[in-house]
Amino acid sequence: MTDRIRLGMVGGGQDAFIGAVHRIAARLDDQFELVAGALSSTPEKARASGHALGLPRVYPDYKHMARQEGKRDDGIEAVVIVTPNNVHFDPARSFLRQGIHVICDKPLTHTLASAKKLVKEVAALDALFFLTHNYTAYPMIRQARAMIADGQIGEIRVVQVEYAQDWLSEDIDTKQAQWRTDPARSGSGGSIGDIGTHAFNLACFVSGLKVEELSAELHGYVPDRMVDDNAHIMLRFEGLARGMLWASQVAPGNENGLRLRIYGETGGLEWSQEEPNRLWFTRFGEPKQLLTRGGAGAWPEAARFTRVPSGLPEGYLEGFANLYSDIAQVICAHRAGQAPDPAVSYPTVQDGLAGMRFIDACLRSSAQNSQWMPLQPD
Amino acid sequence: MTDRIRLGMVGGGQDAFIGAVHRIAARLDDQFELVAGALSSTPEKARASGHALGLPRVYPDYKHMARQEGKRDDGIEAVVIVTPNNVHFDPARSFLRQGIHVICDKPLTHTLASAKKLVKEVAALDALFFLTHNYTAYPMIRQARAMIADGQIGEIRVVQVEYAQDWLSEDIDTKQAQWRTDPARSGSGGSIGDIGTHAFNLACFVSGLKVEELSAELHGYVPDRMVDDNAHIMLRFEGLARGMLWASQVAPGNENGLRLRIYGETGGLEWSQEEPNRLWFTRFGEPKQLLTRGGAGAWPEAARFTRVPSGLPEGYLEGFANLYSDIAQVICAHRAGQAPDPAVSYPTVQDGLAGMRFIDACLRSSAQNSQWMPLQPD
Amino acid sequence: MTDRIRLGMVGGGQDAFIGAVHRIAARLDDQFELVAGALSSTPEKARASGHALGLPRVYPDYKHMARQEGKRDDGIEAVVIVTPNNVHFDPARSFLRQGIHVICDKPLTHTLASAKKLVKEVAALDALFFLTHNYTAYPMIRQARAMIADGQIGEIRVVQVEYAQDWLSEDIDTKQAQWRTDPARSGSGGSIGDIGTHAFNLACFVSGLKVEELSAELHGYVPDRMVDDNAHIMLRFEGLARGMLWASQVAPGNENGLRLRIYGETGGLEWSQEEPNRLWFTRFGEPKQLLTRGGAGAWPEAARFTRVPSGLPEGYLEGFANLYSDIAQVICAHRAGQAPDPAVSYPTVQDGLAGMRFIDACLRSSAQNSQWMPLQPD
Amino acid sequence: MTDRIRLGMVGGGQDAFIGAVHRIAARLDDQFELVAGALSSTPEKARASGHALGLPRVYPDYKHMARQEGKRDDGIEAVVIVTPNNVHFDPARSFLRQGIHVICDKPLTHTLASAKKLVKEVAALDALFFLTHNYTAYPMIRQARAMIADGQIGEIRVVQVEYAQDWLSEDIDTKQAQWRTDPARSGSGGSIGDIGTHAFNLACFVSGLKVEELSAELHGYVPDRMVDDNAHIMLRFEGLARGMLWASQVAPGNENGLRLRIYGETGGLEWSQEEPNRLWFTRFGEPKQLLTRGGAGAWPEAARFTRVPSGLPEGYLEGFANLYSDIAQVICAHRAGQAPDPAVSYPTVQDGLAGMRFIDACLRSSAQNSQWMPLQPD
Repeated sequence: MTDRIRLGMVGGGQDAFIGAVHRIAARLDDQFELVAGALSSTPEKARASGHALGLPRVYPDYKHMARQEGKRDDGIEAVVIVTPNNVHFDPARSFLRQGIHVICDKPLTHTLASAKKLVKEVAALDALFFLTHNYTAYPMIRQARAMIADGQIGEIRVVQVEYAQDWLSEDIDTKQAQWRTDPARSGSGGSIGDIGTHAFNLACFVSGLKVEELSAELHGYVPDRMVDDNAHIMLRFEGLARGMLWASQVAPGNENGLRLRIYGETGGLEWSQEEPNRLWFTRFGEPKQLLTRGGAGAWPEAARFTRVPSGLPEGYLEGFANLYSDIAQVICAHRAGQAPDPAVSYPTVQDGLAGMRFIDACLRSSAQNSQWMPLQPD
Repeated sequence: MTDRIRLGMVGGGQDAFIGAVHRIAARLDDQFELVAGALSSTPEKARASGHALGLPRVYPDYKHMARQEGKRDDGIEAVVIVTPNNVHFDPARSFLRQGIHVICDKPLTHTLASAKKLVKEVAALDALFFLTHNYTAYPMIRQARAMIADGQIGEIRVVQVEYAQDWLSEDIDTKQAQWRTDPARSGSGGSIGDIGTHAFNLACFVSGLKVEELSAELHGYVPDRMVDDNAHIMLRFEGLARGMLWASQVAPGNENGLRLRIYGETGGLEWSQEEPNRLWFTRFGEPKQLLTRGGAGAWPEAARFTRVPSGLPEGYLEGFANLYSDIAQVICAHRAGQAPDPAVSYPTVQDGLAGMRFIDACLRSSAQNSQWMPLQPD
Repeated sequence: MTDRIRLGMVGGGQDAFIGAVHRIAARLDDQFELVAGALSSTPEKARASGHALGLPRVYPDYKHMARQEGKRDDGIEAVVIVTPNNVHFDPARSFLRQGIHVICDKPLTHTLASAKKLVKEVAALDALFFLTHNYTAYPMIRQARAMIADGQIGEIRVVQVEYAQDWLSEDIDTKQAQWRTDPARSGSGGSIGDIGTHAFNLACFVSGLKVEELSAELHGYVPDRMVDDNAHIMLRFEGLARGMLWASQVAPGNENGLRLRIYGETGGLEWSQEEPNRLWFTRFGEPKQLLTRGGAGAWPEAARFTRVPSGLPEGYLEGFANLYSDIAQVICAHRAGQAPDPAVSYPTVQDGLAGMRFIDACLRSSAQNSQWMPLQPD
Repeated sequence: MTDRIRLGMVGGGQDAFIGAVHRIAARLDDQFELVAGALSSTPEKARASGHALGLPRVYPDYKHMARQEGKRDDGIEAVVIVTPNNVHFDPARSFLRQGIHVICDKPLTHTLASAKKLVKEVAALDALFFLTHNYTAYPMIRQARAMIADGQIGEIRVVQVEYAQDWLSEDIDTKQAQWRTDPARSGSGGSIGDIGTHAFNLACFVSGLKVEELSAELHGYVPDRMVDDNAHIMLRFEGLARGMLWASQVAPGNENGLRLRIYGETGGLEWSQEEPNRLWFTRFGEPKQLLTRGGAGAWPEAARFTRVPSGLPEGYLEGFANLYSDIAQVICAHRAGQAPDPAVSYPTVQDGLAGMRFIDACLRSSAQNSQWMPLQPD
């Protein structure tokens, strides 16, 4: 394993949730080695967290870390940024400018302006940028995308996507809830940023279509909440396809209800994140089929990511690890000056910008009585 | 059973689908006796259909029937109207004016103007009018409504309703498809009239809330289709509750996917027509519960309509029969000059008018780039 | 409807459950007319129940009824027997001897000896005998049987059937519970008679195979219960097919969990009574298919019994009505001296005898430490 | 991470399935470091596989490895044995005698005699022995066990367990299929050894009950198959509890259908491996509850193993990793000369022996016409 990718992490210290997820995902297929970190914005916490993980190199802050790692021969090749949204841009730029690839949590940044700046940075530099819309790497999501691209359901007419949770139904006081409902740290979008961008990204990824315009109605139901916790959005995709997106964090009984249903001229596909190994496929006029990750109806796009036989469920961490696996392939190809395997796929900084445009358009539409708003570049 | 209600039927002859449903529903609990009919607009078919059913009195057309039955001492007490939408108003008025109660299929009529006229007719006459939004009579729907009225989920925030089918995914040539996609017979609404009104009615019935405004985007996807076959609609209910309604007849893999999910401050309720004996109930912060029609969590509102023990499924026809059972109670109370049991519930001509306003608002909103349109009376 | 079949009923008065089910089932498709009854073993209750239903002819007891109806020109053509098991044989014989067809609830009788006598009676007389193993008339059960007969899953290897309920988990004091747990009235079998016979019958009906031997372990878990409330049974079918049958009335969380799974050389079929409109079909090596009553994968055997489109659930009462519909066809063919439509199917007195042999074999096997017991005729 | 446990592996080279699973499971929570291996019985393959994984120390065979590692100061502390069943005993003994803990795949060995010898070895030595009945480490399985121990369903009456697959429905020629159907390598049990032991172990683990006797009927359906591929088994637990176990590898439509249902005097629990994050719980007389791994109804026993919030599925690999996590705690406690946390649980060599007795009893019972066979120690 001399060529495991040397990885660093910014954020993700004690109390964090998503940092541990990234570490497991990076470790699962043994293609990365976490060797450095600045795991908290509080230097002491950063040190304690780093030592608790047994990291070889522990930094008090990301700036120091970027500078030092950039200088070392055995410095990190990639860094994972798992901080609140308002602390994405600066560290990303710092590492990219050191030639260190960036694996960044979504949404891209906390403002559309900073997102646009980041796009320019990435374009100007050699280092790679990956956004962790992890749901795109579920095997049956990859298969759904491939089936649609192959014409299995014909031209798309309708896209229904939703992401429903209930954990913010009341005003809660955990670290996770606090920053996500604080516009200064999460940006002006609440549920639309935290989960709406996932739904939006997934709908576009699987359908292969871009959203041209949207009409939104956002609400913050919990008293004193400063961001939306429920979003109703109508979508106009390119061509004739139309869709709806519902994002909610106040829907009691929903744990992590990300669901995608796409209907075309000749068929339909339905998928739910809580049962990720299954994909329902209907050819109009034929019985519904249940396709499973490793089963008889699996396509190569799902098989690529199949570690255990069908019926043995792979879950969220495996899905996340699939994305890390594709990222590893891209980084290795970049090392070798080659193009990555065409089967590889990952969300780019452009996808991140699209997500920021989505948030921005939602906010503007909602403020203007749900007027249709374009998402296209200005 | 000397006091079974004498019933007539207009429409519902050979080839019809919904006529047979009404007949079974009326017969199931043995409270009605079908004794007369004008079962087709074609006199010969009307006669053949009536004789095939062994009806004591067979009429060539509804006008004749209304006149004759109105004169008889043993004439029908109620008539079922199961004709295309453009043939609701005239027969309804004819029978009402004869003092014969009307049980009318939805939507109320084929134009908002005729709906308003019908409301006035009903208001001015003594005979009763019932609209067969049959889904309101599923036991667990009644229970959901009662639970919400009782405050079990707190103040409502979000209402998600959808009605997805696939049978019109292609241009088909059956009698059922023809009139439903012909504006002259069905009215200007396609899917919004045929199934959208059911979804709209059910959302209002269960939530106990009125829709004040809506924003709609309608499409007719199948080439040469003259009405919508897919509708995306955002809903503003009175107060702060917001919702979405999706109606589609071009969603392959959906047979009769009417689903309702309502979320309030303290809980959520979820129901699907294809599993009508089940109601999912979550109190925020507690495990999800599966309530069943005849099970431990059944309320009296469901128990009223429970013919067989839990685990023995009751279905669509039983749901329809529940409505007929409530109608029978209302008619019997009317006979006796009494108020019906307060547990009884049925969709009124006002509910029908609300449905017509819904259709009208959808069409106008969609024509005006999804502008929010009020549904309230002018 | 001059030729609706004139029907009588024995048992099924107030407090009874299954009598009302039979009445609805007989009425649903309008092929029967209930005109006479001896609805209780208590003459006063019999009268009150009969009058409450508005029956034209109310009898104090079945003997009187059989004699009188047998004499009338317009006497009943068929009688439904819905009494406790120990009151099946005598009324059945009485009516059969009057030339009146018998529609009898299962199990056939309360002892194997009386069952054998009844078989002889039926053989010797012209009147028809029908046993209401109603689950055989669910549309997707008929389809499953047809698919197996057609070789869709190849030669059968394994049959797993179970019927799990929970209502007798405690000692309860309802009329329904009392007679079912009283050997004098129900026979020596408890759960094996009440629900085990259904499971046994269904497994044989769908597989097309006979059981040759069984090995059973029966328990009565509730203190002071005099019959079994849980039964574990291994089955040897003719040929190589093997199976298991589990019947329980003490399995909390199970309402009416009758489930059948059959696996053959090349495929499998799975069905659950609580979702009766669905049948899972797998061809080995292909994705699982969800076949629905009225959907694209429906066979004519299911279509025969389809009153409403797919997605509109038909349930237990419709299933029961399907059996009545087949019975009506057989009776009408008998009237006309013709053979019934070959599509028609119903459980016979021989099936009833097989069920009694099943009960008997279970009891003997369980008493002899689960020794394998043959079911074949002595 | 200086104290990650140094791990070796025997078997699990290229083409193997379960070796990769163990490696991921051991890596997931970063408590083990794989440093040595003899990954194949073919020395060349062993070398190639070891180098492909980048192992620091690659051995041509396990004997050499045990000897060398036993001598090193930095030798492995534990070894994973993932060879065919006939190659469990010898390597296990070799490593145990070197003071190296053994993590061994199930079933324990390929004969009851060797299993008994292994038990004696373990008893006589200081090194620890762990059997990877991985399904016992699913969070909701741990919770189910805790709930039963706590009396949540009362005294147990009925245990229904099944493990159904379809991959051996035909004669297939993969490496995985070959050794599993070769008595010389797998032992005399086919499906009962490969999956039946899992089902048996899980039923005992969750119920907290021992099986005293069983009655079995085994079949090998596929022509020329030398071991059983379907097993029907009745179980007598200590006390009054009774159960059924069905294991099949020829049930088309079943991928990895391990399901456990346990019913007691006052409640029931139901779990399915394909939806491992969910546990159905019914208190008799109350609505069914859906308990989820990280949800409101989660107990500490599930929470211990919760890496990601509820609604984000954890699957088979996480379940396996949970077992490795408990093993790590036991090994660390052993290092420190302390007792492990009482929350920790793992299958022991005695559990392995029980599994071998189960296989043996199944074979003997089936050979003797399903006679009841005791499982207790001779």
